[in-house]
Formats: sequence, C-alpha cells, structure tokens
Amino acid sequence: MMKRFCLTLIVVLWVLPPVVLAAAGEAPISDATQECLDCHSEFHPGIVQDWNNSRHSKMTPQNALKADKLKRRMSSTSVPESLQNQAVGCAECHTLRADAHSDTFEHNGYEIHVVVSPDDCATCHVTERTQYAKNLMAHAYKNLAENPLYQDLQRTILGESTVKDGKIRFSPANGLTRAEACFYCHGTRLEVTGYETRDTDAGELEFPIISGWPNQGVGRVNLDGSRGACTACHSRHHFSMEMARKPYTCKECHAGPDVPAFKVYSASKHGNIFSAMNSTWNFTAVPWTIGRDFSAPTCAACHISLLVNAGGAVINPRTHQMNDRLGWRIFGLIYAHPYPKDPDTSKIRNRSGLSLPTDFDGGFANDYLIDPEAQKMRQQAMQNTCLSCHSTTWVKNHFVRLDNAIQTSNAKVLSATGLVSRAWERGYAQGPGQKGSPFDEFIERRWSDAWLFHANNVRFVSAMAGGGDYGVFEDGRYPLTNVLLEMQSWLETRDMMSTAKKK
Amino acid sequence: MMKRFCLTLIVVLWVLPPVVLAAAGEAPISDATQECLDCHSEFHPGIVQDWNNSRHSKMTPQNALKADKLKRRMSSTSVPESLQNQAVGCAECHTLRADAHSDTFEHNGYEIHVVVSPDDCATCHVTERTQYAKNLMAHAYKNLAENPLYQDLQRTILGESTVKDGKIRFSPANGLTRAEACFYCHGTRLEVTGYETRDTDAGELEFPIISGWPNQGVGRVNLDGSRGACTACHSRHHFSMEMARKPYTCKECHAGPDVPAFKVYSASKHGNIFSAMNSTWNFTAVPWTIGRDFSAPTCAACHISLLVNAGGAVINPRTHQMNDRLGWRIFGLIYAHPYPKDPDTSKIRNRSGLSLPTDFDGGFANDYLIDPEAQKMRQQAMQNTCLSCHSTTWVKNHFVRLDNAIQTSNAKVLSATGLVSRAWERGYAQGPGQKGSPFDEFIERRWSDAWLFHANNVRFVSAMAGGGDYGVFEDGRYPLTNVLLEMQSWLETRDMMSTAKKK
Amino acid sequence: MMKRFCLTLIVVLWVLPPVVLAAAGEAPISDATQECLDCHSEFHPGIVQDWNNSRHSKMTPQNALKADKLKRRMSSTSVPESLQNQAVGCAECHTLRADAHSDTFEHNGYEIHVVVSPDDCATCHVTERTQYAKNLMAHAYKNLAENPLYQDLQRTILGESTVKDGKIRFSPANGLTRAEACFYCHGTRLEVTGYETRDTDAGELEFPIISGWPNQGVGRVNLDGSRGACTACHSRHHFSMEMARKPYTCKECHAGPDVPAFKVYSASKHGNIFSAMNSTWNFTAVPWTIGRDFSAPTCAACHISLLVNAGGAVINPRTHQMNDRLGWRIFGLIYAHPYPKDPDTSKIRNRSGLSLPTDFDGGFANDYLIDPEAQKMRQQAMQNTCLSCHSTTWVKNHFVRLDNAIQTSNAKVLSATGLVSRAWERGYAQGPGQKGSPFDEFIERRWSDAWLFHANNVRFVSAMAGGGDYGVFEDGRYPLTNVLLEMQSWLETRDMMSTAKKK
Repeated sequence: MMKRFCLTLIVVLWVLPPVVLAAAGEAPISDATQECLDCHSEFHPGIVQDWNNSRHSKMTPQNALKADKLKRRMSSTSVPESLQNQAVGCAECHTLRADAHSDTFEHNGYEIHVVVSPDDCATCHVTERTQYAKNLMAHAYKNLAENPLYQDLQRTILGESTVKDGKIRFSPANGLTRAEACFYCHGTRLEVTGYETRDTDAGELEFPIISGWPNQGVGRVNLDGSRGACTACHSRHHFSMEMARKPYTCKECHAGPDVPAFKVYSASKHGNIFSAMNSTWNFTAVPWTIGRDFSAPTCAACHISLLVNAGGAVINPRTHQMNDRLGWRIFGLIYAHPYPKDPDTSKIRNRSGLSLPTDFDGGFANDYLIDPEAQKMRQQAMQNTCLSCHSTTWVKNHFVRLDNAIQTSNAKVLSATGLVSRAWERGYAQGPGQKGSPFDEFIERRWSDAWLFHANNVRFVSAMAGGGDYGVFEDGRYPLTNVLLEMQSWLETRDMMSTAKKK
Repeated sequence: MMKRFCLTLIVVLWVLPPVVLAAAGEAPISDATQECLDCHSEFHPGIVQDWNNSRHSKMTPQNALKADKLKRRMSSTSVPESLQNQAVGCAECHTLRADAHSDTFEHNGYEIHVVVSPDDCATCHVTERTQYAKNLMAHAYKNLAENPLYQDLQRTILGESTVKDGKIRFSPANGLTRAEACFYCHGTRLEVTGYETRDTDAGELEFPIISGWPNQGVGRVNLDGSRGACTACHSRHHFSMEMARKPYTCKECHAGPDVPAFKVYSASKHGNIFSAMNSTWNFTAVPWTIGRDFSAPTCAACHISLLVNAGGAVINPRTHQMNDRLGWRIFGLIYAHPYPKDPDTSKIRNRSGLSLPTDFDGGFANDYLIDPEAQKMRQQAMQNTCLSCHSTTWVKNHFVRLDNAIQTSNAKVLSATGLVSRAWERGYAQGPGQKGSPFDEFIERRWSDAWLFHANNVRFVSAMAGGGDYGVFEDGRYPLTNVLLEMQSWLETRDMMSTAKKK
Repeated sequence: MMKRFCLTLIVVLWVLPPVVLAAAGEAPISDATQECLDCHSEFHPGIVQDWNNSRHSKMTPQNALKADKLKRRMSSTSVPESLQNQAVGCAECHTLRADAHSDTFEHNGYEIHVVVSPDDCATCHVTERTQYAKNLMAHAYKNLAENPLYQDLQRTILGESTVKDGKIRFSPANGLTRAEACFYCHGTRLEVTGYETRDTDAGELEFPIISGWPNQGVGRVNLDGSRGACTACHSRHHFSMEMARKPYTCKECHAGPDVPAFKVYSASKHGNIFSAMNSTWNFTAVPWTIGRDFSAPTCAACHISLLVNAGGAVINPRTHQMNDRLGWRIFGLIYAHPYPKDPDTSKIRNRSGLSLPTDFDGGFANDYLIDPEAQKMRQQAMQNTCLSCHSTTWVKNHFVRLDNAIQTSNAKVLSATGLVSRAWERGYAQGPGQKGSPFDEFIERRWSDAWLFHANNVRFVSAMAGGGDYGVFEDGRYPLTNVLLEMQSWLETRDMMSTAKKK
C-alpha cells in the first residue's frame, strides 16, 4: 500500500506544474510544509494549487516587512524568527500555537490543528485581528446565541413544526439545521467531540471529530477560544485581497432581504460602474489609489481598504473594525438606531429589560449606544471617501436624505407595531404581554416582515445612494405599505367576527 | 493656508501619473480647464482621473469630426470655434451657456454651473439630444408629477402613515423621500434655493444651494429648463459608451418587479451569452458590428446603437428615441397598450377623463396612441436586428407569441379588475366611485400587484424571448394567479361575514 | 434582382474579415457549406461570425480524433468519410440524415432541415448523446405533458381565467402561452404544419412552417422523433464548451424559486470565488484540471465535466447523464425523494395511483426510485470532486447536513399538507377527494408555495453548502414558516365563521 503510494507521489511530483518550483524559488518552502505538499498535492490538488497562486507561497514575512509602510500588507512588525525566512505554507499556519488549539492532533509526526484561527493569523496581521475583534461580526455567534428574543425568533423559523387541531407548534431546531442556517453566517461554536481512525490512501490515521465544522462564519467560536474567521472574506487557501475587495464576498451574507447590501449596490450607480468596468481595475494594489486603481467604490473601498489619492495622500486608513465609519445601525432590529458602543450586543437592555437597542415604541437604549457626537465623527470619516469624487453639497445632501430615510422608515415600522399591538391587546394574537412569542403567529410575521425586510431595504437604498427599485417596488416602500394594509385588513376581519360573536 | 495649498499642489502635479501628460499631448487642455485640474486633481481625484481615462480628454471636437460618418461619435457638424481645438474638459462643459443656467456662480474668476444639462451636451451631440427629447424618459418627471392618479399611488407608497383605531392614513411624502424614491429614476426638479459660503481647503468660497440635488434621473428638470440627464446612462466623468452599452446601466432603473428588464435579460439566452462571453467583445467600436464586435445583443444593441453587418451595411441606425422600435408599451400601467404618440403622457385622457392610456376595462384611449400601422413599422424596425441572427420564421413566431402574451396578460388583469370592482361595488373597499383612492386598501394592492408586477413580468419574458422562470414561477403567471385566488378568497370571507351580519 | 444580389455578394465577400480565411486555412470548408456562407454571411452575419469563432469551423473530425483520449472532445471513434476532412459547417449539420427529419425541404439545390437534433450531433458526439438520453432533461416534455397532475397545475397557472360571481375559472392555456412558459425550458413538441413561400432577398423560396418553433428546451421533441436540444446549453452557433461550463447557462432554467440553483450558487462561497476570479480561469481546457484551470467549481464541474488533478489522474469522468452523482431529487415535487430509476417519470405511480414519486404523506413510491445503496454510490461519485479541495471530515459533515435538510424540509411540507388537508376535510376548499383541483384555490396555493419554492430553497442551500440567506430569509425557512402561519390563520378564520354560522 505505502509503496504504491510513494510511487504515485514521484509521478505526481514529476508532472507538477513548473509554477510550483517558481514559487519555491521566490520564497523557500520549509521542510515541514514540503512534507505536507508531498501528499496533499495529490489528495487535495485544489487547495494546494490555490495556495500556490497566493502571495503566501511567494513572499517571506521578512521580505514583506521591507515594503514602505503604506504598501505593507503585514501589520505585525516582528514575527518569530522561525517564520521569517520562508513561505507561509501549510505547516506554518496549521502547527502554530499547537497547545492553544483543542483540535491539535498527531499527524505524520507533526502536531497539526485543523481550524486556523484569527489568533493564528495575528502572528503576522496583528492590527487587523485587533480591529476585527472590535467589530460586531467577531461577536456574531454570541450576539445571536445569547439574546433570548433572537433565540425565540430562530426557534420559530428553524424549529421543527407539528400541527395539532390546526395549530402549529415549533420546537427548537437541531444543531445541524442551526449550523447551516443562521450560524452559517454568524459562525458556529466549534467543539472536539472525539476522535476517529480512518483508512486513508496514506494508511490508517486518526483525526479529531469537530462538531459545528465546517464553518466560515464571521463570528465562529474557534478551538482556541478566539472568535471570528478570517476565511469568511479571505477564502482559503488563496487568502486573496482581490477577492475580499470585490462585492461578491460580502454577498455571501449580505444578499438577503434582511441585509440587502449586495442587491442594492449592484443596482446603484456605483454598482453599475463596478460591473461594467472592473475588469480594467487593479484589485491588488496597496495602497488603493482612487481613480487610478478603480473608479467607483466597492464595499471594501468604503468600509475597509486603505485609500490614497493620485498624489499618495491618505484618504482613509485601512480598518477591519467595519463599523468605525457607521453612525447608524440600519438593519437587523425593529428600529434603526445609533451604533452600539460595545460589539457584544448581548449586554444591551432596553427600558423593558429586553436585550434590544430600542424600546417597542422606537426609543433608543441610549446608555448602550454611541452619542450624536460620535455618530457625526463616524459619518465624517466616511465622507472623506465620498468627497474624493463628489462635491461637498452633493455629499451633504446625501446624508440629509439618509437621516430622513431612517426617520421615515422608523415611523412606518412604528405604524406596524401599533397594528400588531392592537392584535395583542384585543386577544387576536398572543404577544409578550400574554406570555406568547411575538414571532409565531400570522399577524406577528407581517410585523416582522415590515422591519426585518422592507424598512431595511429603504435604508440601504438611501445609504448607498441608489439601488433604484429596492427603495420602492422591490422589497421597499410598496411592499412595506402592502404589509401595513394587510395587517389592517386582517384586524378588520377579526374585529368584524368579534362583533358578530358578541351579538 | 494658501501657501501650504500651493506647495501641496506642486507635489501633487509632480506625482500625477504620466497618462495625464499623454492625454494632454493628444488634445490640448485649455487654460481654464487646467486651472480646474490644478485644484480638483487633489480635491476630487476620482472624477479627474475618470475624465482623464475618457475620450473627452483625448480628442478635440475638430478631430472627432474628421472621422467617416458611420464612425463619428459627434452628431453636431459644427461647434463654436472656441471649443474646436482642445480637449472637452471641466471648463468646456461647466462654463457653457452660463446665462442659461440659474446655478451659475462665480468661482475663482469663472462663471461655473454645477449641473451640466442635455442642452449643454447638445453643443456636440445635437442629434442624440433631439431624439432623446422625443423619448418618454425625457418627460419622466412631468409624466409622474402631473398625473393625479400616479401622484395618488405615490402618496400611498411613500407618504407618512398614521394609524388611528386600526386604520392607516397616508399623508403626502416629503421632498427628501420623493427625491430618493420615485424621482431617483424619474428625475427631480432642480431649483436654486439660496447660496452658502464654505471654508474650503482653497479658502472661503460661495456655492449655490440646489434642492433636488444630487440627481441623475432620466427626466430631471434642469436649471436651464431642459429635461433629462445624459449622465443617467453615460456616467460622469467618463461618459463611457462601453458602460452605456452594457446592461448594468439600464439595470439602475429597470431591475424592479415593475420593470424587470435586467432580470429577465440576464436569465435569457441573450443574457447568458452576454454574461459568459462579453469579456472578449468590443464595446467601444463605432459602428458596432454584429458578430464581430459582439455575439448577442445587449439592451443598447436592440434599442439604441448603430449596428452594421460584417460588410459594413447598416442594420439599424443609432437612436436615442428609445421607443421608435417599440409598438407596445408593456409596463407601468394597468393594461399593455399601443405606444403613446406624444412623450408627454400627462395629456392623455381615457373615456372616463382620467390621465390613463386605457379604460378600467382595458379599452385603449386610441386618440393618444399610435395606430396599428405605426405599431407594425416599429416592430419591423426592431426585426432588422433580430434577423441578423435568426431566420424569418423564428422572428415571425417570436412576435406572434408576444402579441399573445400581451392579450392574455391583459385578460388576466381584467379578471383582477373584475374582483377589485366587486369589492368596490359591495362596499368592502372604497374605490374611485366611492371617492376613495384605488391604492390604499389591501384588496386594491393585490390588484395593483397583478398589473404592476406580474403581468409585466409575463410580457417582458415574452418580449425578450426567455428569462425562464420570470414568466412562470418568479414574479410571473404563478404569482399572478396566486393574487387572483387571494382576491377571490378575501371577497368570499367578506361575503360570508356580510351574510352572517344580515342574519 | 438576382444580379444585384450577386454583386452585393462579391462586395460582401471582399470585405469579410480575414479571420474567415484563416479559419478556412485550418479546416477546409466544403463546397456545400461555402454556398451557405455565400448568402448567409450577408443575411445572418451574427450566426455566421459566431460559427466562425467556433471550434467547429477550425477543426476537422479526423484531426479532432488524433488527440489523446482524455483531451478528445469527440466521443465517436469513427465518422462517415464524407465528413472527416472538412470543417463542421452549415451543410454538414443541416443536411445530415435528411430522410429522418420531417422539416427537410429543398433549398437552392440542397435538402436542408431547420432543426438540428441530438441524433444529428450524435454523429460525432455519440457518448454525450447516449448519456443525455438517460437524463430526466431529455424527457422533460413528456414528464410534464403526460403527467395529469402537472397538467392540472399548468392549467391553473397558464390557463385563461374568467371571473363569474366572484369565482375564478381557469380553462386550458393556448399553445403559444405553453410554448413560452413551462415548455420554454421543458422543450416543445415540434411539428411541420405546412409550407409557405416567401419573397426573400435571394428570390422566391419555400419554407416549412413549424409549430412549437423556436424552442431550445432540454426535452424538445424534434422533427426526427429524437428528444432533447444540445443548444439548450451549447448555444448556437458557437456551441461553446466555455459557455456551458459557466453557470449563466444553467441559470436560463435554474434561476426561479422552484429551482434556485443559480441564485444559491452565486451567494455561496463557490459562487463568490467564481465571480471574483473566473476571468483568470481556463474554460476551454480538456481535461479540466482542478486548481490549475479553475479554483472553485461551477455547475459543470460538479455535474458534467471531465476533471483531473494536477498529476493528470481522473477525479471524475465526463457525463451528460447529469443525475448520476445525485442520490436525491430535491425539487419540483411535494417531497424530496430518492432519484427515479427511469428518466421517464410519467410511468411512476404512488400508492394512490397518482403519477407522483411520493404519497401525500411523504412516503416514497419505492418501486420506481433508486435504493439506498444506489444513493450512496451516487453520493460517493460526487464526493470524489469535493475531496479535491476538502478534507474527509468536511465532506462527510456536509452530506450529514444535507440529509438533515431533506428530512426537516420534508417534515415542514408535511405540516403544510396537514393544513391544506384540514381545509379539504372541512369543506373550506375542494381537493382531489372532492373532485377538485388541488391547485386552484387560495389555501392550496399557499401549500404549493411551501413545497414548490421554500422547501426547495432550503435543500438547494444545503446541497450547495452556502447560499447564505436563501436558506433562511430569502425564499427559505422564514417564508416557509410564514406560509404555515398564514394557512393556520386562514383556517382559523374559516373555523370561526363556520362556528358563527352554526349558531
């Protein structure tokens, strides 16, 4: 068995594309990584070749540090000597901090862990890792899993349903469903639940069994306790800046009616210019020069990338705390509200003691949210980018419209809340005041449609200056008012039946 | 302050990419434009670089006129001498016809206007501007703002809502909402409402305050009184023909369920070929050669561009009156109908005196619509393009199907009108006959869903020969019949309650 | 007339792009094809140029056969001598097997048929044609047209509607509607219904009239009796492998909420990598090397293409029987079920004698479906591809989640079936038990929404490891539970009215 395997290996290596050797020439490959490649080139040719096309295979950390500061892609100024002068290969990442990872296992003489975590990546990219931890995304698992109200919404959506006497009951969803639904984007909690021995092409080997795996959600709880997944945006094993700068990456989680960012962008003027012209842009340049490298912003341009003008002056610094230019949180909750101060939103309590940033009538849980001054500063940081292509008047009026969209969409949701509250008051449905879930009846779902989908679309269109129909007919104000009118009609019917009954 | 600014400028100019100089070499830059560039290269690097990549920066009008007629991109045969021998730069457009623009203001010694209008562009592109004025698009502001029925629909969608006793009331929307919703595409009416002084990096300067700005809607009412915005399709400041020829530009306004052109196209055979192969096409060639430059039509190929065959013979001339190959108007109103004769549709009156091209029962307001002979001629003009790739039989059968789709979708809408009329007659809802709005109750919105969305999708799929599911399950006939069945069920419920009450 | 035509021809030929001659140099053009080209270069420049860019114009069958087996694009090992040494041009395909085609007609001295069929293509591509015949797609016409239940669904969606006393009645749809709706994708049945003489630019000529034409649906019934259309995926007249390997081709029919494959893919990690990086991939290489030619799978990579690893070892063979790696059929019917044994699904009978692969309560019609062993083998064949980039654990857990998604989505549909059955039992609607259609009432359409759209989305997202919101908020579990809750509310209303009536 082993003999045939080695013979195969020799053949494989012989026919490996010359680019592998070229890469090796630029950045020496460590012996450990070479051992990985020897087998995995055959077993997992896709990821090996992907890595081979990556910068990690071509550049040593020490050489990366020689670049001028603005051109540097590594934020750590020193890395362990053992990593400095070789390519960042399989072994460099998958054996790093072996003791910290509960999935570390013995594999052909090496202590390997399956799941590389942000704390591993921090070895070379410490600033990005630190900033990302301040981001709501890093806390996306906890922010969902530890918010009782959101857990209740999750149960009524994902839970198993039984019908008895024409009534539906939802029981909690199983772990497999949760992992591929909400936690696909939010990130799962990984756990080593045992070990198994498998007969592989390279002989009998033992591997850890990891529950919650695979997952690349932004708030994944890793086996070293860290939170987040760099691979959510920098797909393995190319870890490409080009890919992260294109809007398709953000689309993976920001496409649905609850966070319609990609759809709205792709129907906006900026999205149009991107779609039509991006094949001529430079997505790998660092820093990223407005006008020269690209002529309309992508998601990354506004929220993340280091931008300079043609003269090399910094327009906006790189950030991986994606909310530091966002004054308002415009989606995901009943009303738009000022950004939470702390990325761990499970701590927030509104006046009613619920883990929500607003009250049911729209009032803000101000103690937990940034103040108007902080909102203004974040907006100004965003405007630095806008002003590279637009006049002051243009930009000012844009943000006046956004404030109006937030106010008017919140007002429409307040109308919807008024209607669902009437249903609760009159006993047509069982809300929180009646010890019922606010999410498991027809009229309640029309209410959540209003804020979870339609008010969001209105705000995203405003925030992104376009998106055409998404603000009106496509998921916007027309369906939003449709929902209000359907709620009114449903209440009328129940009122009429209630009156008839009394007679 | 000024000193530091000038020093910065010198640095900026020194590091400007060489392409600026190359461009200057091809077409001299006027002194006035050079002055603009001196500051705005730093302040607005995005748009300056965009212009720098444009044909406007590289070609003088006089040289442009030397091309053979079919290859010419300028339709005006003479331009003022002062413009002939220099690049079409900042000053050339933003100082043109200064007296005509109410936003003209003094800016560093120049009379500048912010909003360049179609009448400015007409200096070099007179044919396109003249044709465009005959287009419904040029009248999109007025066609919406001066149609009482559409204003009522707009109010019920965008208006602020209040709930009292379980009833929703809509008041008219504010100007900010209107500007970013319907008028984002239709175009706003611009107005100078005052002036403000701002402390800029170049010192204290005064600027006009323009209400309705920013906007690039197709029917924008400009500050010189002209209607339209060339930048709706030819995005500033590249003004690219390539971008306008790609379907993403049309998507900005033709994506929603009310005008699903882009979605239907992208799921059609033509759209498939475009998506898969367009990276190898030539989007800048004039004229545009079928088969050689592109192998499947984009929106522009069928509706706008000058097309020739491989032998150079004209297949279809360029037109910016986008409706001159369209016999039917298939969206936006209750029933599909022959195209309006006059692009100002606010003049139309149906038998009931409403500003609608059809009666409630589907009859055409024939006096205002083109006749069958004109319809046939427009269809034949379109077919010239179809016949470049398809046989006569193929094309003929395609248009027979389109006629059938128009008739059958109109018939389905007539069923919906019958159901909503029954609700009005029986007093379950308040329609026009009861002095009510036909758009502000549940059953009325299901009726508008039928014609505003689903019948449209059916017709677009037929017109564009494909689009797969958009004609059936995705926004097409399945949701259309769902709406009919929901209306029927709602009427049944009200009928039952009405009967119960009488007892 | 004829003289002018010939003069034009000379001019046309003189200006034809040199690439035509270059192509001719590589593969000689037959005299017959040259005669076609002489006229059709002028009349149909688009398709001639398209063919000219194709491999068919540049490679003779004999030369194609010289390639090594894995590199060969022709599966037939011998072709008629008359075809061996010339380009595969107009005449080669459109005169093939003239006697077999009922649309063969005399055209300038040649026996031409309009519709080239899979049996024509089989001359050079016999394996692909044979495999394709085993595919459900090849039987898509019959599987729809001869299934009474599906015909009933079609009638209620496409049929003409009349409203009488507030009730809607659907009569069967006309042939034009059917051809552009369901049968656009499923394929039409073609029939020669007569002949017509037309005055063309080349004089008076006679042509067959073909009902059902144009059509490129996957199960088209051709005029030689064969089933299928290679042009559904290999668009005429380029017949490009590149196009078929890109997901836009599949999108033509797999975009809607009933088969959301494209949408789900484009929001998945694989789709993101494709969108961001495919401009650097090689879509024409045969065999297709994982990692080197592409770094994430497209539809074709998983379901069709011949894949090898960097060492040239075969990962998965080419197949045109697209279901031979699919254990489950996850869309189109009430419950997901094991794949049918026979591609002609009109033969299937469930326990109730209906032409359905499951009972109303979800039980499988096992006699007609593959067994668990066959399911496992198909899954393993698919996994060969997955394992090229993913670890065994990763892949195993992925398929465990898929099984869970199938079970839980089937369970949710069972809840919906319980609710609609209650409506039938209580007389609120007329189902099959009451000799009514199960598709033509409001509550029935909410039931079909559940299985036709939402359960499908859940399964596609699971099967394709991503697609973000399509499994939850966008057409997934949230709208699925919305439907259940709306059904429950509707039943409650009818129950209440029923009770009121009894009193």
